[in-house]
Amino acid sequence: MTSTAKPNNAASASNTEPPRPLLSRETGGSLIAQIVQLVTARIDDKLLRTGARMPSIRQFSDQHKVSRFTVVEAYDRLVAGGLLESRRGSGFYVRDRTPMLAPRAQRTNTARQPVDVVWLVRNMFRQLPPQKMPGVGLLPNEWLDADLVANALRAVSRQNLPLQYGNPQGFLPLRQQLQLKLAELEISATPDQFVTTLGVTQALDLVARHYIQPGDTIFVDDPAWFLMFGSFAMLGAKVVGIPRLPDGPDIAQLAELAALHRPKLFVINSVLHNPTSTSLSAAKAFQVLKIAEQYDFMIVEDDIYCDMHPGTTVQPATRIAALDQLNRVIYLGGFSKTLAANLRVGFIATSPEIAKHLCDRKMLTTLTTTEITERVVYRILSEGHYRKHADRLRNKLDAVRDKTVRQMERIGIKINISTPAGMFVWTDVGCDSNALTERAMEQGYLLAPGSLFSPNQLPSTNMRFNVAAMADPGILPFLEREIGQS
Amino acid sequence: MTSTAKPNNAASASNTEPPRPLLSRETGGSLIAQIVQLVTARIDDKLLRTGARMPSIRQFSDQHKVSRFTVVEAYDRLVAGGLLESRRGSGFYVRDRTPMLAPRAQRTNTARQPVDVVWLVRNMFRQLPPQKMPGVGLLPNEWLDADLVANALRAVSRQNLPLQYGNPQGFLPLRQQLQLKLAELEISATPDQFVTTLGVTQALDLVARHYIQPGDTIFVDDPAWFLMFGSFAMLGAKVVGIPRLPDGPDIAQLAELAALHRPKLFVINSVLHNPTSTSLSAAKAFQVLKIAEQYDFMIVEDDIYCDMHPGTTVQPATRIAALDQLNRVIYLGGFSKTLAANLRVGFIATSPEIAKHLCDRKMLTTLTTTEITERVVYRILSEGHYRKHADRLRNKLDAVRDKTVRQMERIGIKINISTPAGMFVWTDVGCDSNALTERAMEQGYLLAPGSLFSPNQLPSTNMRFNVAAMADPGILPFLEREIGQS
Repeated sequence: MTSTAKPNNAASASNTEPPRPLLSRETGGSLIAQIVQLVTARIDDKLLRTGARMPSIRQFSDQHKVSRFTVVEAYDRLVAGGLLESRRGSGFYVRDRTPMLAPRAQRTNTARQPVDVVWLVRNMFRQLPPQKMPGVGLLPNEWLDADLVANALRAVSRQNLPLQYGNPQGFLPLRQQLQLKLAELEISATPDQFVTTLGVTQALDLVARHYIQPGDTIFVDDPAWFLMFGSFAMLGAKVVGIPRLPDGPDIAQLAELAALHRPKLFVINSVLHNPTSTSLSAAKAFQVLKIAEQYDFMIVEDDIYCDMHPGTTVQPATRIAALDQLNRVIYLGGFSKTLAANLRVGFIATSPEIAKHLCDRKMLTTLTTTEITERVVYRILSEGHYRKHADRLRNKLDAVRDKTVRQMERIGIKINISTPAGMFVWTDVGCDSNALTERAMEQGYLLAPGSLFSPNQLPSTNMRFNVAAMADPGILPFLEREIGQS
Repeated sequence: MTSTAKPNNAASASNTEPPRPLLSRETGGSLIAQIVQLVTARIDDKLLRTGARMPSIRQFSDQHKVSRFTVVEAYDRLVAGGLLESRRGSGFYVRDRTPMLAPRAQRTNTARQPVDVVWLVRNMFRQLPPQKMPGVGLLPNEWLDADLVANALRAVSRQNLPLQYGNPQGFLPLRQQLQLKLAELEISATPDQFVTTLGVTQALDLVARHYIQPGDTIFVDDPAWFLMFGSFAMLGAKVVGIPRLPDGPDIAQLAELAALHRPKLFVINSVLHNPTSTSLSAAKAFQVLKIAEQYDFMIVEDDIYCDMHPGTTVQPATRIAALDQLNRVIYLGGFSKTLAANLRVGFIATSPEIAKHLCDRKMLTTLTTTEITERVVYRILSEGHYRKHADRLRNKLDAVRDKTVRQMERIGIKINISTPAGMFVWTDVGCDSNALTERAMEQGYLLAPGSLFSPNQLPSTNMRFNVAAMADPGILPFLEREIGQS
């Protein structure tokens, strides 16, 4: 093997053995792969040492009777793999392999960290088995349709790919599909009224940055999605919670607090509110809009759970945007819950004028979003697959939710909402849910205690469960033991 | 054809004709496509009117001897296409087709708009032929390698696709490749020191939001990339330009202005600076770093043009990060210029501690970036294709640049930089370049006048040309006429 990668550097290897046929056209993969393997093995075995110069492309090619192209390709792979380095005008050398640091080891016991928003957000990204994470806000992979996404991505890869920045407002055919989607919800919006975003998270960030100066007040539901508390605090906003009742916000409180705080925005989940999975009644929607008009604030209607709702003929749900038609309401949606959070496709629907402002702001912060994933979502919507997929998800959720709710009630967990719906069940576990969360983490379960959803992080006995993410057989017995003891 | 889509709604169509075999298994595409076509044709011909109820799935299936699955699929496509609507529990109806608004017509004559940053940014997204846009900052599509990107995307679509959020710091194997890339530049960084971003634009936004409070000062090169002026102004920052000389910033000015303004950040292109394509000398790099230490500000080294530089053995270029090793320097890079801006893959390299803060900030503003495009870039890097592609781009740029520079000199355009490099040529056209830009737009050419790159938008006779984007045979004659007249 000495000759395979015979270094010109005399110090690094013996030069005396005659060349042997080390590369074979018959066995073991492509010639390129064989060269890569041979050189790698020699470096691993320290037969080729750091700093040794490799034979030139021509020398290697002549010696082993392979084309120069093959050698170039192999050397390039070795460079890309970090084994060789190319010094311009001088040749290829065995590189110094400073050991690649593994990603920092995941701590398996984080029980000693305080339970707070940062704690939960970081834990959302931990490598726990999905069936052990009733605290997360996404469906596990096996609930989603990886083939649906992969097929659409494959189709997109066969089209003319977008290489330039693309349209800052988003891929036009996707915005046309969104127009149809909103029309079904009785919200009328033309394609120029949409701006695509990296999920609802970026949508909220863009809207908040447009409206909020430090010291301004934003209203949110109480409880509500915790990530936005941090996002708004970062802008210097004062975040005030409006108590959420089963049919929507507490209207008396909303009016009183609006008079007191004069908020700029009210961010609300009208449909399948996170974490309670309750939806807005028509009367409440009207009252919220009237108060917004009276005190002149904008309503940001985050409808990310839209497609988990069975439809208004089955269960009441009113979108304020359907009453207001995007004058005072900025409507947000996306596909993270139903298709794949990793696509990062969300959107804003608003008046054409505000859309223009938000689009300018998007350009200044991320220029555009990638059209590749927007084309994936467009295909899935336009080919009619999305509707069926959402139907399947709802049916599956219904079955699992009913079963899980019964099991939870049996072990003494109180269900706070009389008609559970969607992905989340909002419960009262009858003990400090922060402490319960810490004990669960010791057992490898991620829970989402009520304090996280409180704008003031107040401890409580409430707990949000994702019914799709608690298939692990140990969870309910664990909860039963813990709740029984408390 | 009447019976194909026989409405139950008696008002909408005749019911008297017997069924005819309208669907064929032998001819003309799938049965699903045939149903879609038939129904579409009937709606277009007003044989099926708005509001008409479609036959139920079962009726249609029985009548036409096709499976219910086929009918469901066809109806779904018709719904997705906006021709039918589904009313839950009631069936399918022909929908009201409010005409879909075309995107707002592109104005072909924007000469009357003032030339400013917003003007140029909006025009960057216009549908002009790429060879008529010497003002843009990207390579035209035909310079890029669409197959390289498409093949990588296809390979990614065949893997297990990421459906959950993914790692907020970015796809780990990509960060390992970035470690290798930076090591070649003598910058040592482990994977936990990287955060992926939506291009350098998001990287700058995250860094600025982390360091800047309203009223703080940011130093930039003068001239510099215009988009960040708007981005920083949005944060309430004061943007101060440091005059750029051929080998880097004017050091005396930098020291004086640093003492005066006490900036938080200095954003600099060390290598192939936009718009001058000049690179930092070693001495200047050292002096900038010393002043940053003395006045305690961070250096944000935007190295987006990195791979267009021929290497330091060919042309001097020093990265401050190579001296400082990511203590006081935050290094930014990306693949928008060489692979495809639409992938939106950029990155930050910094100390592990700052990386953690910036990652938290990324989570609050966009949660994660999509791993799909990060996997595409990973494949292209790890398989060794990237290096060759960048080599080809550089060779091609060298050839075009030399020719273009000679042509420009011949018609009286002065080249400001003695050794042109990279993609941009920074020139003096000898007349007000704003006025020239307006006249060019009337002829359908997009230029980039010097005023855009000035932190104070000062008018000047300077102009940036992208040598890859001026293949149109009319450009040089136009410039010659205009410059001759002035």
